[in-house]
Amino acid sequence: MIISMKKGATPQEISHVRKLIEELGYKVHESQGSERMVFGAIGDERSKHRLTSLEAQPGVEKVIPILAPYKLASRETKQESTVIDLGHGVKVGNRKLLVIAGPCAVESQDQIMEVAAAMKECGAHMLRGGAFKPRTSPYAFQGLMNDGLYLLAKAREAYSLPVITEVMDTASLEIISEHADCLQVGARNIQNFQLLKEVGKTRKPVLLKRGMSTTIEEFLMSAEYVLSNGNHQVILCERGIRTFETATRNTLDLSAVPVLKEKTHLPVIVDPSHGTGHARYVMPMAYAAVAAGADGLMIEVHPRPEEALSDGPQSLRPNEFKHLMEGLRRIASAVDRDI
Amino acid sequence: MIISMKKGATPQEISHVRKLIEELGYKVHESQGSERMVFGAIGDERSKHRLTSLEAQPGVEKVIPILAPYKLASRETKQESTVIDLGHGVKVGNRKLLVIAGPCAVESQDQIMEVAAAMKECGAHMLRGGAFKPRTSPYAFQGLMNDGLYLLAKAREAYSLPVITEVMDTASLEIISEHADCLQVGARNIQNFQLLKEVGKTRKPVLLKRGMSTTIEEFLMSAEYVLSNGNHQVILCERGIRTFETATRNTLDLSAVPVLKEKTHLPVIVDPSHGTGHARYVMPMAYAAVAAGADGLMIEVHPRPEEALSDGPQSLRPNEFKHLMEGLRRIASAVDRDI
Amino acid sequence: MIISMKKGATPQEISHVRKLIEELGYKVHESQGSERMVFGAIGDERSKHRLTSLEAQPGVEKVIPILAPYKLASRETKQESTVIDLGHGVKVGNRKLLVIAGPCAVESQDQIMEVAAAMKECGAHMLRGGAFKPRTSPYAFQGLMNDGLYLLAKAREAYSLPVITEVMDTASLEIISEHADCLQVGARNIQNFQLLKEVGKTRKPVLLKRGMSTTIEEFLMSAEYVLSNGNHQVILCERGIRTFETATRNTLDLSAVPVLKEKTHLPVIVDPSHGTGHARYVMPMAYAAVAAGADGLMIEVHPRPEEALSDGPQSLRPNEFKHLMEGLRRIASAVDRDI
Amino acid sequence: MIISMKKGATPQEISHVRKLIEELGYKVHESQGSERMVFGAIGDERSKHRLTSLEAQPGVEKVIPILAPYKLASRETKQESTVIDLGHGVKVGNRKLLVIAGPCAVESQDQIMEVAAAMKECGAHMLRGGAFKPRTSPYAFQGLMNDGLYLLAKAREAYSLPVITEVMDTASLEIISEHADCLQVGARNIQNFQLLKEVGKTRKPVLLKRGMSTTIEEFLMSAEYVLSNGNHQVILCERGIRTFETATRNTLDLSAVPVLKEKTHLPVIVDPSHGTGHARYVMPMAYAAVAAGADGLMIEVHPRPEEALSDGPQSLRPNEFKHLMEGLRRIASAVDRDI
Repeated sequence: MIISMKKGATPQEISHVRKLIEELGYKVHESQGSERMVFGAIGDERSKHRLTSLEAQPGVEKVIPILAPYKLASRETKQESTVIDLGHGVKVGNRKLLVIAGPCAVESQDQIMEVAAAMKECGAHMLRGGAFKPRTSPYAFQGLMNDGLYLLAKAREAYSLPVITEVMDTASLEIISEHADCLQVGARNIQNFQLLKEVGKTRKPVLLKRGMSTTIEEFLMSAEYVLSNGNHQVILCERGIRTFETATRNTLDLSAVPVLKEKTHLPVIVDPSHGTGHARYVMPMAYAAVAAGADGLMIEVHPRPEEALSDGPQSLRPNEFKHLMEGLRRIASAVDRDI
Repeated sequence: MIISMKKGATPQEISHVRKLIEELGYKVHESQGSERMVFGAIGDERSKHRLTSLEAQPGVEKVIPILAPYKLASRETKQESTVIDLGHGVKVGNRKLLVIAGPCAVESQDQIMEVAAAMKECGAHMLRGGAFKPRTSPYAFQGLMNDGLYLLAKAREAYSLPVITEVMDTASLEIISEHADCLQVGARNIQNFQLLKEVGKTRKPVLLKRGMSTTIEEFLMSAEYVLSNGNHQVILCERGIRTFETATRNTLDLSAVPVLKEKTHLPVIVDPSHGTGHARYVMPMAYAAVAAGADGLMIEVHPRPEEALSDGPQSLRPNEFKHLMEGLRRIASAVDRDI
Repeated sequence: MIISMKKGATPQEISHVRKLIEELGYKVHESQGSERMVFGAIGDERSKHRLTSLEAQPGVEKVIPILAPYKLASRETKQESTVIDLGHGVKVGNRKLLVIAGPCAVESQDQIMEVAAAMKECGAHMLRGGAFKPRTSPYAFQGLMNDGLYLLAKAREAYSLPVITEVMDTASLEIISEHADCLQVGARNIQNFQLLKEVGKTRKPVLLKRGMSTTIEEFLMSAEYVLSNGNHQVILCERGIRTFETATRNTLDLSAVPVLKEKTHLPVIVDPSHGTGHARYVMPMAYAAVAAGADGLMIEVHPRPEEALSDGPQSLRPNEFKHLMEGLRRIASAVDRDI
Repeated sequence: MIISMKKGATPQEISHVRKLIEELGYKVHESQGSERMVFGAIGDERSKHRLTSLEAQPGVEKVIPILAPYKLASRETKQESTVIDLGHGVKVGNRKLLVIAGPCAVESQDQIMEVAAAMKECGAHMLRGGAFKPRTSPYAFQGLMNDGLYLLAKAREAYSLPVITEVMDTASLEIISEHADCLQVGARNIQNFQLLKEVGKTRKPVLLKRGMSTTIEEFLMSAEYVLSNGNHQVILCERGIRTFETATRNTLDLSAVPVLKEKTHLPVIVDPSHGTGHARYVMPMAYAAVAAGADGLMIEVHPRPEEALSDGPQSLRPNEFKHLMEGLRRIASAVDRDI
């Protein structure tokens, strides 16, 4: 940490801050600049949250961290990329891209079976479908809940596809773990730390969706919660952040892909359906995500989007998804990836 | 809802959309503009989430909602302002302002007692203190948990102050409800819908903190989750949103105060400590909040901010808080409020 | 335009609003909803800015525009994509991608010649280089000004490359027009309407860079300023918007590419150098831009980025640029484009 | 400046960076942390823009500035607050608040005279009115231009009020300077550096409006452009920034008031009309601005907002403005200010 003193800080203030840094267990390194004194606090970063409180001390201008606050998620800690086994022979994090597809919500047996059949035929690898749905409105469809899980499990057996579904709270964690191959923590729960701790105690792969206003550093800290509880199978998913632009539902931050691939060893995938909110922008942004270096995609597919109980406008029809998969094969090949 | 067709929509597309609107139970109202057909869908708004999916239909340009999606929270539904009784003779939502004060986290008996004594003496009404702390880092102090609750309860008895503390998950809801007079749902959990449903089933007053990227409409929808589960004692708290500006920790959106006071009957308070992140900006923003029409304030106070285990830089010292209360009395009087 | 009345609007208010709409020359279309009256104002949109002022009228809840405010820029007005001739046989807007490369600022004859030689050899099509530099600080290097223009012109002759450079005000428009093949309006001037009008009166191609907080609709309105003054050669450039994320200099909004390609017939290119601010992220985001459907790229190249007078951290070295061009050829081919 | 090396930086990279820092004229201060080497570059900050380019050097992780980039605007340079004389006995920056009022645009002699009479009677100090209007749409009313200036000048004589109007380009600077007492640089031109330089060469007071996505530091750098060209009469105006929230036209960042008052000696005023975009939120936010420590306000007033040629929804009627002034007197008194 760097602690920069104010220009007019008194000698008493300066020596008191030096003393406080030492009391927190750091070695102090002084640097007298042309205008102000700057301290370096050298040592273990565990108490750095307390170091931050030094900003409350008279004479201190600001406290600037130098080290990244995450450890287990960092590529400095583990250089080789993590590959995660999702079951049914499906992996993510290696040369082969992961394509997850399915409806926003499981609505009926016919619906989920129709989608599973279509996506399997197109070569997608994993089935998504919400059973417990986080909806902005209490009056909106909240998902089929356990019945949705059973239908997902049926589709998984029928088509030999691993499935992923969202876990919204610790109460439903056990039953979801029984039926799903991968647990999804949604954007709205990305800083629900109790939930992160609990999924960290399971041994299921976990997909974390970046929150609407989560910085990349905070996103990695959320991954750190899962990793530090013992679960090392974490997949990160960029799905758009909230900005002033309203032409798209969110602003898909594709730069997050190379930034994350640099900073962490964890696999990174992209959800262009939520990222754009409109089916007609999903294909170009899926291509862009793969070109940017993503390890996979999560795509919403619905047999009849205009009748969807949620997120219809951003869902592809099965024939559109087929067309997307064909284009993806060409892009993947251009960046030396398979699909 | 307004459904605007594309300029080149075919007669078949137009008549199909009309049919779909009717099938969802709406009366259709047609308006042929100079360039395109515009439909009004008239009727009960319950299935409007499905209406939104019409954007997936060929020929449709966009679907525009006309009505606000919240009902119980709306001032159209209930015109008189809601007044909430917090116990120990303290209320919020009437002419008298509510001042909540206390440390970010309960750290020790000495600390919480010292703060409680100081704030009581200054005329503050309610004691805050975190026992379960949502921290970005898994390595940071996570709160004293149950021990923190017991210490809070002690301070409450010693000084006859109602207390408020954060509930982070449904598992700790029961024990917190036993010891606290008001449940706080934090900014990071504002769209943790399971938690909102559960606090909606209690009969404790609930304070909801606006999330960092929560729109005012979404904030009211989160309140609607609590209200629609039967708990009508909801207090809203503006605490800063996330923007590009980094001079302050968040950007305190004080305009949210008059907007919320117009749209809802629920009490609205402001937290300038989290809103600015720096103790030296808390006083002017607290004054501004009251001038803007807030029903109260939540202020972080710590005996020695430079030693705080969390949020030191934004905590006032007891003597600074005393000075703040004196100024607040003058501002309150200028807008015909008491303190 | 849709004018939605408040729930409790009186019959007098409703009839007065109807009268005001008619006085502005619109035909009124009434639609009585289940809760409130909604008017459609049908007719020429020219006075719609005045229609917006109706929100000031008692009883009116909100005024909602239906039509896009731009006309000449709209694909509804002109369906075929615009192709712009930049001289020296270089075009943009057709199957062949445009690659613009060069330093942020022209610094010396050696520097600009070295870059021009390198980029020409790699197959780039157009040379960029700032002579007049908009710098946040008055103390930073402001460009070589006219001398920079002469150096650019030399490089253009030596390597038969069209050149583009920024025009910061109307005073330097004439001399820049003499030496440049394309005028660049920078992000900070995208709503400098006087400048837009003046470049609209020239017959030079103009590249408009999206501002840091410009919506896509506002961006198209800035294009409309140029088009409506008679200059139809407008190229749009996405270069990142300002968000809360600080891992990159800006947030490159690649979704803007398919959105713009849908809404306008004008060519759309992407600047991943400013978009990310770090050389190591330029390659993946350049690939992503082409995969998303961009018509070209603008890339900063400098022989020795660590010595650059501006924007060093985001500049590629010539050998890195060569590597980028090789990869781009593969991506371009995968989306049926040439380079 | 702090230059932090990567964890795995080689001794060669480290010694090369040390050499580059020295070559730029800085004294180097080394600090070997527990994980990485950190350099302090000590000395004159003039070449710091070049220092930033060191991020392009292999082995460098990041370059972190310590000093604020502005000098003349800084309160470290000049501790006493600047008071600016606007003519007709009106000043800003001292105990007495400045209230500027008037229509968005000058529309006719009757309109501007009616507003001037009303605001003078209420005790406002300065008349605003746009003659040259920056409009998002080329088809919207662009102002009466020179005729607008003449009308403003008439009102100024008739009511002995200093006037302020916007200057959009250097071409109209001379004529505007003849008729106005204060030049306004609008939000869209806040980084139009040529314009800032030119107004810096005049000796007229200048009001700078913060841009929609301008950080406080950048805002002060724009002031620095004016100051460093010799004009020391600069007033800063917060008018709302662009965020994700759409309930208000912009998000009025009132925290900017105490932040600016701390960092600079220049007067700071607030424009709640543009800040909120709705007349009904202007009063509470005007009160809040004064409570937060603003030196003045700029308020839009129009005799008939529903007929305004621009910005009708955010304009107060004269009687509403009168009511506002009464309330302001009470708030001002509560924070020891006069009006």
